[in-house]
Amino acid sequence: MRRSPLLAALLVLFTSCAFADEGMWTFDNVPHEKIKAAVGVDLDAAWLDRVRMSTIRLSNCTASFVSPDGLILTNHHCAESCLDDNSSAGHNLVADGYLARSREQELKCGQQLADVLMEMENVTAKVQAATAGLPAKAANDKRKSTITALEQQCEQQSRTAKGGPRKCEMVNLYEGGQFWLYKYQRYTDVRLVFAPERAIAAFGGDPDNFQFPRWCLDMSVLRAYGPDGKPAATPNFLRFRADGPRADEAVFVSGHPGSTQRLLTVAELEYLRNSYLPRWLQRYSELRGRLIQYGKTGPEAHRIVEDPLNGIENSIKVRRGQLDALLDERLMKAKRGEEADLRAKVAANAQLAALTGDPWADIARAQARGAELYMPYLYVEQGAGFNSRLFGYARTLVRAAAERPKPNTSRLPEYAEAALPRVLQRLEAPVPVYPELEKLTLSFSLERMREWLGPDAAIVRQLMSNESPDSLAAQLVGGTQLADPAVRKRLWDDGATAVDASTDPMIVLARSIDAQARSLRSTYEDEVEAPTEAASEKIAHARFVAYGTSLAPDATFTLRLSYGTVRGWTEQGQPVEPFTHLSRLFERATGQEPFRIPDSWMKVRDQLDMQTRFDLSTTNDITGGNSGSPLIDAHGQLVGLMFDGNFHSIAGDYWYDPELNRAVAVDPTIMFEALGKVYQAQELLAELRGR
Amino acid sequence: MRRSPLLAALLVLFTSCAFADEGMWTFDNVPHEKIKAAVGVDLDAAWLDRVRMSTIRLSNCTASFVSPDGLILTNHHCAESCLDDNSSAGHNLVADGYLARSREQELKCGQQLADVLMEMENVTAKVQAATAGLPAKAANDKRKSTITALEQQCEQQSRTAKGGPRKCEMVNLYEGGQFWLYKYQRYTDVRLVFAPERAIAAFGGDPDNFQFPRWCLDMSVLRAYGPDGKPAATPNFLRFRADGPRADEAVFVSGHPGSTQRLLTVAELEYLRNSYLPRWLQRYSELRGRLIQYGKTGPEAHRIVEDPLNGIENSIKVRRGQLDALLDERLMKAKRGEEADLRAKVAANAQLAALTGDPWADIARAQARGAELYMPYLYVEQGAGFNSRLFGYARTLVRAAAERPKPNTSRLPEYAEAALPRVLQRLEAPVPVYPELEKLTLSFSLERMREWLGPDAAIVRQLMSNESPDSLAAQLVGGTQLADPAVRKRLWDDGATAVDASTDPMIVLARSIDAQARSLRSTYEDEVEAPTEAASEKIAHARFVAYGTSLAPDATFTLRLSYGTVRGWTEQGQPVEPFTHLSRLFERATGQEPFRIPDSWMKVRDQLDMQTRFDLSTTNDITGGNSGSPLIDAHGQLVGLMFDGNFHSIAGDYWYDPELNRAVAVDPTIMFEALGKVYQAQELLAELRGR
Repeated sequence: MRRSPLLAALLVLFTSCAFADEGMWTFDNVPHEKIKAAVGVDLDAAWLDRVRMSTIRLSNCTASFVSPDGLILTNHHCAESCLDDNSSAGHNLVADGYLARSREQELKCGQQLADVLMEMENVTAKVQAATAGLPAKAANDKRKSTITALEQQCEQQSRTAKGGPRKCEMVNLYEGGQFWLYKYQRYTDVRLVFAPERAIAAFGGDPDNFQFPRWCLDMSVLRAYGPDGKPAATPNFLRFRADGPRADEAVFVSGHPGSTQRLLTVAELEYLRNSYLPRWLQRYSELRGRLIQYGKTGPEAHRIVEDPLNGIENSIKVRRGQLDALLDERLMKAKRGEEADLRAKVAANAQLAALTGDPWADIARAQARGAELYMPYLYVEQGAGFNSRLFGYARTLVRAAAERPKPNTSRLPEYAEAALPRVLQRLEAPVPVYPELEKLTLSFSLERMREWLGPDAAIVRQLMSNESPDSLAAQLVGGTQLADPAVRKRLWDDGATAVDASTDPMIVLARSIDAQARSLRSTYEDEVEAPTEAASEKIAHARFVAYGTSLAPDATFTLRLSYGTVRGWTEQGQPVEPFTHLSRLFERATGQEPFRIPDSWMKVRDQLDMQTRFDLSTTNDITGGNSGSPLIDAHGQLVGLMFDGNFHSIAGDYWYDPELNRAVAVDPTIMFEALGKVYQAQELLAELRGR
Repeated sequence: MRRSPLLAALLVLFTSCAFADEGMWTFDNVPHEKIKAAVGVDLDAAWLDRVRMSTIRLSNCTASFVSPDGLILTNHHCAESCLDDNSSAGHNLVADGYLARSREQELKCGQQLADVLMEMENVTAKVQAATAGLPAKAANDKRKSTITALEQQCEQQSRTAKGGPRKCEMVNLYEGGQFWLYKYQRYTDVRLVFAPERAIAAFGGDPDNFQFPRWCLDMSVLRAYGPDGKPAATPNFLRFRADGPRADEAVFVSGHPGSTQRLLTVAELEYLRNSYLPRWLQRYSELRGRLIQYGKTGPEAHRIVEDPLNGIENSIKVRRGQLDALLDERLMKAKRGEEADLRAKVAANAQLAALTGDPWADIARAQARGAELYMPYLYVEQGAGFNSRLFGYARTLVRAAAERPKPNTSRLPEYAEAALPRVLQRLEAPVPVYPELEKLTLSFSLERMREWLGPDAAIVRQLMSNESPDSLAAQLVGGTQLADPAVRKRLWDDGATAVDASTDPMIVLARSIDAQARSLRSTYEDEVEAPTEAASEKIAHARFVAYGTSLAPDATFTLRLSYGTVRGWTEQGQPVEPFTHLSRLFERATGQEPFRIPDSWMKVRDQLDMQTRFDLSTTNDITGGNSGSPLIDAHGQLVGLMFDGNFHSIAGDYWYDPELNRAVAVDPTIMFEALGKVYQAQELLAELRGR
C-alpha cells in the first residue's frame, strides 16, 4: 500500500523540518513529553480536537477553516488548478487574481474536495490476521481485498450513524506496522473566494522556489458549501492572530504531509539514487523545455502551460534535492548505521531473529527485480508513455467498464466502491482540455517510450510501425470526442457494452493496450510489491520491538502534527533572519517575470507600510502536502500559512537536519495589509477578523 | 592539460572496445606481441607508416584518404556541419544529400580542417625539467608557458624544414606521465563531394543511436585541396576491399579517439557521478526539449535545429551510459581495487613512497574544492550561461584583443601564436547564424545561470536587474552586428582599440563580464587544476614504475591504433550476429522519421540485392572521435567505416568489457551498392575503385 510514484507526483511537493526533534506525528500518538521539553508547551485534548477538525485535506494540499461559515485558507498554488479551470483565453484568473464581492460571485472548483478527519480506528489486528501465514503474493492480494472490504463496510455503517456519512480510507503507518481506518467528513462543493495575482503569490517564481529569504503572498481563500448549496457551518475553525508570531515562539503545524521515505532500507534508497531519480529528472527536464518553448509561441500558449509548468518545475527542484541528499555519503552512512543497529538488535533476540529472517535481503532482491521490470511498467501501465489528460479519461472508462461489474473486493483498488465517487467527479468535471498541449505531452511521451523500450519493442511496433509520435498524437487528439464531459458521462453510464463498441481512437488505444498493461502490473505487484510489503512488515515489527512508537511514521498524506519554533539558520557562516519585510520586495523587483510586482501593488506603493513582515521561517518538520497548512500558536490561534521549505528541507524526505532544514510561511501581517490596502477586500477582512 | 569539458563536448562522442585485449595504442608503442597473440597478425613498419599517413584528423572526427587525389572518406555525421553551412531555407543538403558531378561542384566546408600526423617527438624530459621542484600553482603556470614555447619553436623550425610547414601540438599522455610534440600536415581547404540523405545515413535516428543491429549508411566523401586550389596529391591512401571483412577476421582501427577516463582516481570518478553528469544531463535534457519544440514551429525551424539537436541527443546518450557505468557498483569496486593495488606497490617501495606522497588525497581535496567553485566557473568562464554563437564571437574578439599584444608564453593558451590561425578561421567562416536559434539558446542559458547561481548573485543582478532572460537575449541578438563575418574580421584586424570602443551589445556584454570570468578561471586553475595536475603526474610516475607502458594511455584525440575481430556478442542469452543485411532495412521502415527510407532508395528497391551486408560489429576498442575511422585488414585494405558503438561501449570511457563492448561500422558492400544503384555516382565509384 505504498503511495505509488504517480500518486506522489500529484501532490504539491516540498519538504522541511523541526527543532532539535523531528517528526510528523499522528494525532493518536502526540509526544506530549517531547513537546514540553522542546518548546515548553503542554497541548491538551481540546486544543488537539479543535485543530484536527479545523484542518482540511484538499486534493493535493492542506487548508484550514478560518470562519464559522466554511471559509478556507490555503495557498495560491493549491488553488491554481481551480483558477486555471475557471480561466479562458480572454480571462486569466491565475495571472489577474480574483475577488468575489458577494457569495454569488464565488466560483466553483470543479475537481476540488475538502476532507476533515473526524475519527481514527486502529484495525491493525484485522488486517494482519487476514494475511497471517500466507506467502507474500497471496498475502499482498489478500491485504488489498481486506482493505477494500473494511473501507466499504465502514462507509456503509457510517451512512446510518450519527454525524455520518463518512469517507473511510485505510492508512498504512510504519511501512506495514499499523493499519488505521481514517474517517472523513467530505465537502464536494468548494468555491473560490479570493486569490491575488500569481506574480505576487509566487514572486521570484521557480528561481526563488525552495529558497528563503522570500517574498510570496502565497495565499488563496475558498469556501466549503453543503449539499444544500449553502455555505457550510464550521464551528471548528482557527482564529487569526493578526500580528503574527514572535521570533523563537513555539509554533505547530497541522496538515497532511504527502510522503517521506525515512524508513526505507538502504537497498531501496540506492534504487532511488541509481535509477529512479536520474531518469525521472531527465524525463521531466526535457518536458520542462518543451513546455517553456511552446509557451513562447503566444500569450494563450503561455497561459495554458503555466500551471503544468509550475508543477513540473517544483517537482524538478524536489527531485534534485532528493538526488543530492542520496549522493551525500554522510546520509548513506547514517542509513547504513541505522540499519546495522536494528539488525544487531534483531540478532541479539533469538525469538525475534527467527520471526524476522532477513527481510533486508528480500527487499534488495525485490529491488533488483523491480529495476528489470520498471521501464515497461512505467511507460505502459503507469501511463508515462501516454501523457495526456484525454488518454487518462480513456483509461478510466475502459478500466471502470471492466472493473465495475466485478465483486468489490476483486477489483483494482482504484475502482473499489469507496473510490468511485471521486473517479466519477474527476471524469465529469468540465475542465478545459487544450488540444495543442495534449499533442505536445502525448507526442513527447510516445517518443520517450520508443526511446526507452526501443523501436523493436512489441508495443512500440504495435503503435508506431507506420506512425511517428507526432502523427500518432495528432490522430488520437484530433479524433477523440473525450474532451466533451457529456461524451465521457454517457460512456460511463452505458458501461462495458458501449466502451467495447466505441470507435473513439483514444478508447481504442486504451483498450488495445489494456491486457499488456494489466499483465505488466500484476507481474510487478507479484514480484516486486508483494515481497517488499512482506519484508517491510517484518522490519516494521522488529522496529516496534526495538524502539516502540518513539519514532514517528513516514508521511502518508494523512493528518499529522509537527512542533517547532520561529527561527532562522546559519548559511555558510552567515545568519539568515527568520522574517522578511515588505521593503525588500520592491528592491528585488526587476519589472520582468517572475520578479514583477503587480500593478495593483505599484499603484498603492506609497500607502503600504514597508516594515510589514512578509514571510517567515520555522523549524517545523513538514513536507509536500503540507502546503496550505496553518501555523498555530500555543493558544490555537492562526499565526501563519505554510507554503514552502528552504532548499535544505528537501533532504527531509530521507533524514532530518535540525541545523539547516526550515519550513517557510506567509506572515498574517502581510495578508491583512494586502487585503486591506491593495485588494480593498473589506467584506473578506471582516469575516477573517470575526466581524 | 586535461581536455576541458567544453572541448570534449565538441567532439562527436561515442565509445567502444576491443577483443580480450583493450587499448587505444599510440603508434610509437604498438604492442606487437599482444596483437600477434590475440589476432595472429604481425604488423610491420611499412603497414604502420602507410596507415598513419592515410589517417586524417578532422575537427571532431577521423577520416582517411581513399584515393591518391585527396579523396576522403568519413561519416555523414562528421560532415553534417559542412552540409548545414552550405544549406539554406530552400536547399537542405542534410536532408537531401549531395553529389558533386564534377570537381567544380565540390563545395567548400568553411570550418573543416584535415590533419595528418607526420612525426612524433618525445619532449617529456624538457617539460618535466621546466617544472621540477616548483610548487603546484607555479608548476601549472610554468608547464603551460613551456608548452606554448615548445609548440611555437616547433612550428617556426618546420617552416624552413623539408616537407614543412607543420602544425605542432603538445600531447599529454598518461595524465602527465609523457609529453609529446605531434607534428601534422594540415589541409585547410576541404570540400564536399558526396553525402547521402540523412534519413539513410542516420536511419533510426536517436532511437537507434548506440544500438546494434543497425542499418545506417553513415558515410560522406570529402576532398582535400592544396594551397594552389588543386586536389591534394596523397600517395598514402587506403584501397577499398569491396567485399568487406569476414566474421572473426582480424581488423584494425586507426583514428583519433577523443577522450577516455580509465586512469582517473576514484575521487575523480565520484565527482563525475555525483555532480558533473547528473547536472549536465538535466541541463541538456531541457535544451533538447526546447529545440525539439522549436523545430515543430515550421519546416525552416525544423531544419535549423537538426544539427545541434543531433549533437545534443548523441551526447545525452553518452552521458547516460557514463552515469549508468559509474553507478554500477562492480565498476567502482574494480576501480577501488586498481587504486589499492597501485598504492600497495608504492607503499612497498620506500624510495617511491617518499617521492609519491599521497596524491590520491591531494586529488580528493582538489575535487572537493572544484565542486564548490564549479557552478560560477561553468556558467561565467566556460560560457554555459551564454550559449550563443554570437557571444562566442564576442568573447573571442574581446579576449584576442587583450591577449595578442602579450608575449606568446604569457597568453591564455587558446590565444597562443600556434592556435591563432584556427581561431581566425572559425571567426571568419561565413557560416549562417540563425537569430531565433541564438535567442533560444541564449535565453535558456541565462535562465539556467540565474537558477543555479541564484537571482541575488552579483553577475545575475548585473545582467538581469531590469531584464528577463528572454528580453536580454532579444536585445543582445537583435542589436549585435557580429553575424556579419566582415564586421568580425574588421574588429579582429583593428584590435584592442576598436574592441574597447565598440558599442555592439554582444561585445559590451563580453567585455563587462571578462574580469569576473578571468578571475573565476584563475581561481579554478590554481586551486583545482594545478594540484590535480601535480598529483596526477606523481600517480603517472608511480604507475610507470609499477607497470611500465604495458597499459595504453587514455584517449586524447590523437592518433591511436586498436586491434580486434569482426564479432557479435550475447545479449541476455541471445546471440547478436555481427552483420546486418539490406532486406531488414525495408522491414523496419515505418515511412515516418527517423525510420523513413528516402525516395531515392524506394525507386530502385527492385534492383537492389537484398542480401547485401549493411553494418557490422567488431571488438575494437574505440571511442568518440573515432567516428569516420577506417576499419583495416591485415593487408592494409579498407574493410569498413566506423560510425558508432553499441550501448555497452559507452562504459568503455571508464573500463573495458570484452564480453559486451562492440564497435559498429558500415560495410563496404552497401557503400558500393548504394553509390552504384541508388546514387548513380559512376565517377566517384571509379575513383574509389582505383579506376
